[in-house]
Amino acid sequence: MSRTRVRRVPDRGRYDRETIDAILDETLVSHVGIVHDGAPVVIPTLHARLGDRLYLHGSAASRLLRALERGAEVCATATLIDGLVLARSAFHHSVNYRSVVVFGTARLVEPEQERLRALELFTEKLVPGRWPDVRPPTRQELKGTKVLSLPLDEASAKVRTGPPVDDDEDYELPVWAGVLPMSTVVHEPEPDPRLDPAVEMPAHVARWRAV
Amino acid sequence: MSRTRVRRVPDRGRYDRETIDAILDETLVSHVGIVHDGAPVVIPTLHARLGDRLYLHGSAASRLLRALERGAEVCATATLIDGLVLARSAFHHSVNYRSVVVFGTARLVEPEQERLRALELFTEKLVPGRWPDVRPPTRQELKGTKVLSLPLDEASAKVRTGPPVDDDEDYELPVWAGVLPMSTVVHEPEPDPRLDPAVEMPAHVARWRAV
Repeated sequence: MSRTRVRRVPDRGRYDRETIDAILDETLVSHVGIVHDGAPVVIPTLHARLGDRLYLHGSAASRLLRALERGAEVCATATLIDGLVLARSAFHHSVNYRSVVVFGTARLVEPEQERLRALELFTEKLVPGRWPDVRPPTRQELKGTKVLSLPLDEASAKVRTGPPVDDDEDYELPVWAGVLPMSTVVHEPEPDPRLDPAVEMPAHVARWRAV
Repeated sequence: MSRTRVRRVPDRGRYDRETIDAILDETLVSHVGIVHDGAPVVIPTLHARLGDRLYLHGSAASRLLRALERGAEVCATATLIDGLVLARSAFHHSVNYRSVVVFGTARLVEPEQERLRALELFTEKLVPGRWPDVRPPTRQELKGTKVLSLPLDEASAKVRTGPPVDDDEDYELPVWAGVLPMSTVVHEPEPDPRLDPAVEMPAHVARWRAV
């Protein structure tokens, strides 16, 4: 559909699902936009992808989720910054990034099994291998959690990589140019102050590193 | 105003400008939402704060900026993830985060001096100390760049910090609980393949580290 087409700098547009899925799987958060009383509202929220759907979840009392449940049109955008691009001219400074924009309408996930599966996905996304170790959701907790799923039919990605692109005549300037790569890293785990010292750190925590 | 009031988990709401400014200054990107043909559109874009205003910029051809220039209502949201919060129950898993939501209407920055100052801000935000070293914008480049400013009157922050909060009876479970702190780091600079080897890496690049 036309609204998924990247207009500005079209050669940065990517439409293959492999690229789109990889960005959604690496980002923890979507910035979810809805129209509320005619005005835009953008809320950050955790997401998790399974196949052709992006899951969002939250409290049953959340205004955002209630609006989505009523069929509000949504735009969910997720972005990774991979580096600062330092050009010879101020004008050509940029960032290397990967972003995905998903348009659509979300569907409330009603079956208890699918909701439980989605909660497993969210937990496993935060820390792979964690789900089997934790207390599973009670029926009451499942009831209090709303899960929505958004199809990925109308998704597109936009990607910038590589060194700066300067004007031809600027390459001769004695200005350092290049990229400062950036990434998100996980630091030493901080045990809960109330943790029983007899409980050892499990392998899934010790080995966890951001991709 | 009422739409800046944090409703869900209200004790995470922060309304002091010191907190709001610190988050805006640490984040590179806002996710900017507008309403286009009745539907939400959310686009990631670099931002820079000066005093009571948040600056956005981009090509004069950008559809987002053209909509903002025409007085479209906007919601700009910026988010930092500070850690993964691992509880004893799946249900209480969370993330530590800091986010800012700004509602309002942007103003096109017309005076050339203010636009030049904003471009300096953007360059200095990417890498402090860089502006004096690079080729400044030409008149033509300044013309091709649109700068908009959004007042921070209707801004609010939301912050979660600290260890997991489990249900009382779950503290006895033999499950490791705590926080995996996360942050964005900058890695070894990658010189442009076309960089003249005689150009040394300046101090402002060598010392740059993400906050």
